[in-house]
Amino acid sequence: MVKASERMDRLTKPLGSLGKLEDIAVRVAGITGTPLPSVESKAVVVFAADHGVTAQGVSLYPREVTAQMVMNFVRGGAAISVLSRHCGARLVVVDVGVAAELPQHDGLILRKVAWGTRDLSTEPAMTLEQAMEAIGIGVEVTKVLINDGARMIALGDMGIGNTTPSAAIAAVLLGKPARDVTGRGTGLDDERYEHKVAVIEAALNLHRPTPDDPIGVLTKVGGLEIAALIGVVIACAAERIPVVLDGFITTAAAALAFKMQPLVREYMFAGHISMEPGHRLLLDWLGLEPILNLNMRLGEGTGAVLAMHLIDGACKLLSQMATFDEAGVSGPVA
Amino acid sequence: MVKASERMDRLTKPLGSLGKLEDIAVRVAGITGTPLPSVESKAVVVFAADHGVTAQGVSLYPREVTAQMVMNFVRGGAAISVLSRHCGARLVVVDVGVAAELPQHDGLILRKVAWGTRDLSTEPAMTLEQAMEAIGIGVEVTKVLINDGARMIALGDMGIGNTTPSAAIAAVLLGKPARDVTGRGTGLDDERYEHKVAVIEAALNLHRPTPDDPIGVLTKVGGLEIAALIGVVIACAAERIPVVLDGFITTAAAALAFKMQPLVREYMFAGHISMEPGHRLLLDWLGLEPILNLNMRLGEGTGAVLAMHLIDGACKLLSQMATFDEAGVSGPVA
Repeated sequence: MVKASERMDRLTKPLGSLGKLEDIAVRVAGITGTPLPSVESKAVVVFAADHGVTAQGVSLYPREVTAQMVMNFVRGGAAISVLSRHCGARLVVVDVGVAAELPQHDGLILRKVAWGTRDLSTEPAMTLEQAMEAIGIGVEVTKVLINDGARMIALGDMGIGNTTPSAAIAAVLLGKPARDVTGRGTGLDDERYEHKVAVIEAALNLHRPTPDDPIGVLTKVGGLEIAALIGVVIACAAERIPVVLDGFITTAAAALAFKMQPLVREYMFAGHISMEPGHRLLLDWLGLEPILNLNMRLGEGTGAVLAMHLIDGACKLLSQMATFDEAGVSGPVA
Repeated sequence: MVKASERMDRLTKPLGSLGKLEDIAVRVAGITGTPLPSVESKAVVVFAADHGVTAQGVSLYPREVTAQMVMNFVRGGAAISVLSRHCGARLVVVDVGVAAELPQHDGLILRKVAWGTRDLSTEPAMTLEQAMEAIGIGVEVTKVLINDGARMIALGDMGIGNTTPSAAIAAVLLGKPARDVTGRGTGLDDERYEHKVAVIEAALNLHRPTPDDPIGVLTKVGGLEIAALIGVVIACAAERIPVVLDGFITTAAAALAFKMQPLVREYMFAGHISMEPGHRLLLDWLGLEPILNLNMRLGEGTGAVLAMHLIDGACKLLSQMATFDEAGVSGPVA
């Protein structure tokens, strides 16, 4: 990071004038352990799973949309499909818990742990074995992506109802009431929003998860895609690969990974800040500043993949710009 | 715009969940007059000129840096060179007033109006004829770019000392004291900053430019690159091409263009918000919300070209995403 920072200050621009892009490039130098990092080879990995708690009517959309959207992702018609192409990132979608049999398809990895979680408002969402299996799948898929050449990975999620487990996780980790970290998800009206808050409160009262037991939080009120995303964060840190968070769900996963091993935070970028109130609170708690603020609230990795393009650009500035000496440009007047 | 907005609401995502990207795409539909606009063919045009007022010591860098940086741009070593490549935008640099003879080079258009402006703190920066010639060059270059295929154009500037005329323009248009709109440019210390404010105050006292005479403002306290940028804004609006502002200098030019013809505002995007205090004030006055906020203060079009990539992506979402019907995805529960 010192070497990268010194070079940054010799490039043909006023000191510090590239703002946050300078900090980003220097952080990537530290993450990757190289003063001139290249993260042009980018991948976004979207984990999909269903949630038993949708039986409580916490989402505006029916459960079958999870499976339908997974096929939309890999067929190229979803927002993340379009933005992955636009940003030059490989898109990989992993079924870790969709409540439907999915067909084989290019770009789709079938690693179903269960047909969705159980209803966290009435019983634990998953067993310890299921949690461990899903985390392991996240690790495995990440290693394959890196082996295939990925040098930066963005996190994505798909799962109807998954702002509910994310809010439950945020409430536990931040020690805040459910209402403070619960948003309207895909667009709930007032009545359904109140119901969602009540469902999360009931789940927390039933399971009493504690912040010092992140695996307990995950099994009791988490989701299978969230478990897999924890694995990606851990594997990226272990392999010194920058990992870019998307919205509320991926950040809840990253927060659980941080509780397991705080060092993983050093490998994270916050791609954007979404409209879910709990997202901002989790990012503040993690000490991460979002790169983009576009009022997005879609998930899928859409904010993260756009931010990856900026991170990639920041690294290219560091490695491709000429220094004052190289370009024969005069420095500041004494 | 109505057609674009209706399609946006049928795409496979919760209503409004793409946030500002939805508004951007719908605005481009209006600008271009097509419900499925494509702005993938992008260009950034950087106008370079020198400023007589640098004799007063208003910049940290010597005047010869303008010419040196122009050559750095076209040789590929500057920040805008790297980011143009990264974002897939054509880079064109135009000498409209550099105080040095520049060699012919690919990507460099030689249309020098004068060897820099005169010192605006002691005399008018340019004649009316020079202003008109520079504006005309901006129009001409824009028409050539569009004829060559550009469907979105970002504004860039290079000119040591050019935050001084920009601050003078902002002070006049906004009716504010020089201090409120003057920043530290490339990094002035307190003493030099106070001197810069005093130079601008002296110029405004000498010339007494009035906001209802934008051409008078331009000739008295403007710059040749600022004049040319006015031409680009006007030509983009006339040709229904989105034009993306960069930092303080390009926004000062856009503000003068707006004073000449308020309708041009409808064709503008504010690419980012820079660290120059006058930039935020001008954008608020224009009613434009910046897309990016990365604490940049470099100019050259660097913020604008990054924002163009997001605008391009927003339009691709509108045209390439599948609708709920096309993808066979269920809509919200009744």
